[in-house]
Amino acid sequence: MSPKITTELLKQLRQVMKSPKYVQEPVQAYIVPSGDAHQSEYIAPCDCRRAFISGFDGSAGTAIITEQHAAMWTDGRYFLQAAHQMDNNWTLMKLGLKDTPTQEDWLVSVLPEGSKVGVDPFIIPADQWKRMSKALRSAGHDLVPVKENLIDTIWIDHPERPCKPLITLDLSYTGVNWRDKIVALRSKMAERKVPWFVVTALDEVAWLFNLRGSDVEYNPVFFAYAIIGMNTIRLFIDGDRMMDPAVKEHLQLDSTLEPEFKIQVMPYGSILSELQAVCASLSPKEKVWISDKASYALTEAIPKAYRYLTPYTPICIAKAVKNASETEGMRRAHIKDAVALCELFNWLEKEVVPKGTVTEIVAADKAEEFRSQQKDFVELSFATISSTGPNGAIIHYKPVPETNRTLSVNEIYLLDSGAQYKDGTTDVTRTMHFGTPSAYEKECFTYVLKGHIAVSAAIFPNGTKGHLLDSFARSALWDCGLDYLHGTGHGVGSFLNVHEGPCGISYKTFADEPLEAGMIVSDEPGYYEDGSFGIRIENVVLVIPAETKYNFKNRGSLTFEPLTLVPIQTKMIDVNLLTHKERNWVNDYHQKCREVIGAELERQGRHEALQWLIRETEPLIRVQ
Amino acid sequence: MSPKITTELLKQLRQVMKSPKYVQEPVQAYIVPSGDAHQSEYIAPCDCRRAFISGFDGSAGTAIITEQHAAMWTDGRYFLQAAHQMDNNWTLMKLGLKDTPTQEDWLVSVLPEGSKVGVDPFIIPADQWKRMSKALRSAGHDLVPVKENLIDTIWIDHPERPCKPLITLDLSYTGVNWRDKIVALRSKMAERKVPWFVVTALDEVAWLFNLRGSDVEYNPVFFAYAIIGMNTIRLFIDGDRMMDPAVKEHLQLDSTLEPEFKIQVMPYGSILSELQAVCASLSPKEKVWISDKASYALTEAIPKAYRYLTPYTPICIAKAVKNASETEGMRRAHIKDAVALCELFNWLEKEVVPKGTVTEIVAADKAEEFRSQQKDFVELSFATISSTGPNGAIIHYKPVPETNRTLSVNEIYLLDSGAQYKDGTTDVTRTMHFGTPSAYEKECFTYVLKGHIAVSAAIFPNGTKGHLLDSFARSALWDCGLDYLHGTGHGVGSFLNVHEGPCGISYKTFADEPLEAGMIVSDEPGYYEDGSFGIRIENVVLVIPAETKYNFKNRGSLTFEPLTLVPIQTKMIDVNLLTHKERNWVNDYHQKCREVIGAELERQGRHEALQWLIRETEPLIRVQ
Repeated sequence: MSPKITTELLKQLRQVMKSPKYVQEPVQAYIVPSGDAHQSEYIAPCDCRRAFISGFDGSAGTAIITEQHAAMWTDGRYFLQAAHQMDNNWTLMKLGLKDTPTQEDWLVSVLPEGSKVGVDPFIIPADQWKRMSKALRSAGHDLVPVKENLIDTIWIDHPERPCKPLITLDLSYTGVNWRDKIVALRSKMAERKVPWFVVTALDEVAWLFNLRGSDVEYNPVFFAYAIIGMNTIRLFIDGDRMMDPAVKEHLQLDSTLEPEFKIQVMPYGSILSELQAVCASLSPKEKVWISDKASYALTEAIPKAYRYLTPYTPICIAKAVKNASETEGMRRAHIKDAVALCELFNWLEKEVVPKGTVTEIVAADKAEEFRSQQKDFVELSFATISSTGPNGAIIHYKPVPETNRTLSVNEIYLLDSGAQYKDGTTDVTRTMHFGTPSAYEKECFTYVLKGHIAVSAAIFPNGTKGHLLDSFARSALWDCGLDYLHGTGHGVGSFLNVHEGPCGISYKTFADEPLEAGMIVSDEPGYYEDGSFGIRIENVVLVIPAETKYNFKNRGSLTFEPLTLVPIQTKMIDVNLLTHKERNWVNDYHQKCREVIGAELERQGRHEALQWLIRETEPLIRVQ
Repeated sequence: MSPKITTELLKQLRQVMKSPKYVQEPVQAYIVPSGDAHQSEYIAPCDCRRAFISGFDGSAGTAIITEQHAAMWTDGRYFLQAAHQMDNNWTLMKLGLKDTPTQEDWLVSVLPEGSKVGVDPFIIPADQWKRMSKALRSAGHDLVPVKENLIDTIWIDHPERPCKPLITLDLSYTGVNWRDKIVALRSKMAERKVPWFVVTALDEVAWLFNLRGSDVEYNPVFFAYAIIGMNTIRLFIDGDRMMDPAVKEHLQLDSTLEPEFKIQVMPYGSILSELQAVCASLSPKEKVWISDKASYALTEAIPKAYRYLTPYTPICIAKAVKNASETEGMRRAHIKDAVALCELFNWLEKEVVPKGTVTEIVAADKAEEFRSQQKDFVELSFATISSTGPNGAIIHYKPVPETNRTLSVNEIYLLDSGAQYKDGTTDVTRTMHFGTPSAYEKECFTYVLKGHIAVSAAIFPNGTKGHLLDSFARSALWDCGLDYLHGTGHGVGSFLNVHEGPCGISYKTFADEPLEAGMIVSDEPGYYEDGSFGIRIENVVLVIPAETKYNFKNRGSLTFEPLTLVPIQTKMIDVNLLTHKERNWVNDYHQKCREVIGAELERQGRHEALQWLIRETEPLIRVQ
């Protein structure tokens, strides 16, 4: 990896920072955040502006360029990578270290008095703008919105914003048609007496209209906004995608629908002016609902008195609770995914043990190949983490040629992977040994398994927030002085983003919404030993009602049902460390894998993988 | 209970609300909060202004009086009591119910345009002031500080502020002399470059100077403030308490101490003007440290640019971590407390079973009598919760003649009690049956016990916050659909307040500080069945380092050691519901009770109680 040479680019950027063509007044600093205009976790190439200007292409980082300096803030996952990818025009600001200044403090320390700091108001979320603006103002500077993105002005071969064809999802996938979703949304708006709602997150637009896209890798979304009124629907989307007969039919663009379901299709770029027009026509006391994470540009377009901000939108909350069709789709997707993984693991056992020629990248590609053979496969749901030995201890590892290791009978192999199928999204981690694991490796694996089971089998009252379950996943590790430094679970979309709000399981007490039946989250405790190995056991699980002996205050109880049905390698388990209940859990789980996935392997005529499944799901027997 | 007639009082109050003698401009509303000027949980009679004006004397409630209305906000614990104690001049505002307006919303709905709302700036915490002031301002009203407390102006027989003698604590109790505490505090101040610190909480003043008082019932504190500079100490305290030779000696008031340890004693009432004087002499960049929960009056006295606010003060955090002398004192206190309870329970068994003449109040008094026989007993640490049968389900119950029930062989008895000894503070709950408990009662008790053990025996990494342990206490109850609606534990002072910050164990994720070795908290899960019974098992436990097999990232691990050593009634335990590990925990705990408390009972010649202890600590044997 050689660093990107940025001298010329920075010179050009500093010129446009002063050019009256782009800025009303010169800006002495320019901020380049990571995100896109929708605060997406995964972004399209056209939005990788921070990577373009600096060379650093990790998933998190903020660049600030002044007349004299260029600095990059990123976190511990990326210190090495950023140092390698950036030339010496750049100063690396290591987040989380004591002596690292905040962006605000650094700006105040380097800027001449009364400076202007520019930022693209569509890229910066409103809450970040507020914090930074306040800090700068109190030091005599000004944060100013720069309409035209200054990086784009100097980016010669700037990729176009993707505008790929759409996929329409019928009722058998979504369970609810888009008109009924609009009705439900409007009833939430009526409840709060808010007659307008702005949809800014890409997965929320996709979910609302039962459409999917492929504008962003891994996330089946498309670039769009929507403004929903009590009687109007405006959809902001570019390209000729709306000319597709299937889409036209799906959205009933040509039919004589009731006026309140008539969709006005408008250019993506007209969201701001249309929102301003809506706001201009508001009568007093009418408000506009928007996520508090929306961009500064859109938030600011709504006069303060008319703004109705919430951390989670009603779409985000409705989307998290899967209906029967979505749940069934997720079940089907996980069955297909398990078939692919049984094939993969069977293949690995045959290849790794005698030949020793399988690398991390080969294994990841093979996993994708098996998945792509399954019905309704669309793409992967994230970059496969295929890691062996010490690479397994790098939690966000992705194999690249420079790091690519060969799987062997001497090392633990960790595979965290998933796919998008038209009927659901998967995300599964299994940790395997193709030789003979050491007693210590088995011990650690078994603690992680105990934590996995403790969450998966937990029974808890309705209304419980996911963060209250996090310690269950750690208790067995804690007993021996071990732990893992990541959360235990995240929400999973239904043929949508593999990470979604508003629920999760983490020691970080973010404002998660209570778990309710129909929500889907991951359960993925782990243990990582730097330089040696990584262990993680991840299932996607569905929140379901639990039958309990009593029912305090009639609150009802919940528990989880695993949707992922892939054997957990029994070779790695120290059976004597499991309780009777835990052993039963493993045996019941494997029995279910055998029944459900076995039937599907049989149906698909995958006999060798079926034999592998049967071997891997033999019941555990206590040996001492 | 007949309501207090407040017609005349309210008329007088409404007069002074308009009187130029007390207010610069008339106020159209006056707020009477619960607290005192130190945000104390327990308050002195002179500070019970809300109870005086309304008749309602529960521990939580805020009264607001306008020209037309009088309204009282309180929570679910007190709906009935407040309704009984207040006459029909008052409207009860039930907090937690959907239709109950906030104080701000209510004020806005009833006040004429441009109103002034008055409040005593010493009683309202700064953060509450800020919230309310903002809400009122945005509706065109003003929150204004009224210097003289208007309730006091109409309170004819207003009790005097208590000014009781002080107790000095020598090194054998405190482990650190007050000068070293000042040195440590100044080093924390130097670390943050804050040359001034204002001590506003009563327990923090008491702890800092190794003094105790009895100005407030149950809490061994005295009315005082302090301002600590890098070279000066100002103590604000009234009365001739500083003339006491022991106190003079203790604080070395007459000796030729180094100037930085010379205490300037000033009148309690001069805190505001002295703080203002300190602030007037500040050079730029010098700051004054004060709790963000301090009164509006004191916070406002510090110009905004000079304010350094933190949720927990360095004294609060230092105080929470007990040193060896304090820990040893707490151990001694808990041994004495256990002796008293062994006597009590032995006495109850003898009295309740054959005679049936013991009421809740009699039992509470008897507990106090036995405690008062112990060395260094000072007073109770809170009002004893002595409750039998259905009264046990009222979590904050305190027996009064109207509710006083007789203990019997047919009901569960719950006793939550504690004391202040010169060497430590205790707080213990035991739940007993004097006849034959039902299978269901035993089942519930055993789930609570499992939760108690799960917390007490938990091993967790250094740096873990208490709220991450809360679910351990509930897991066994949750499995059967049961739960309890209170937190699991609170910090406990060392011969100080029985409830203290900054740590605790609760599902409410308040900003608790991480647990560290030397902290002391309670472990008190419960189960309550309205109209039938209450169960709670509470020990005070000390955070201690844990030995673990491994040591991830060299973080080290912690666990708890029970300081409370009172038998847990084995008659109430369904042994078959306990795991092997849990049964061992109970047997080890009882073995320790027998050894430690047995020796002390022997030493004190309390042979009958010793026999009771031996009977109650027989090991559990699995019966199936």
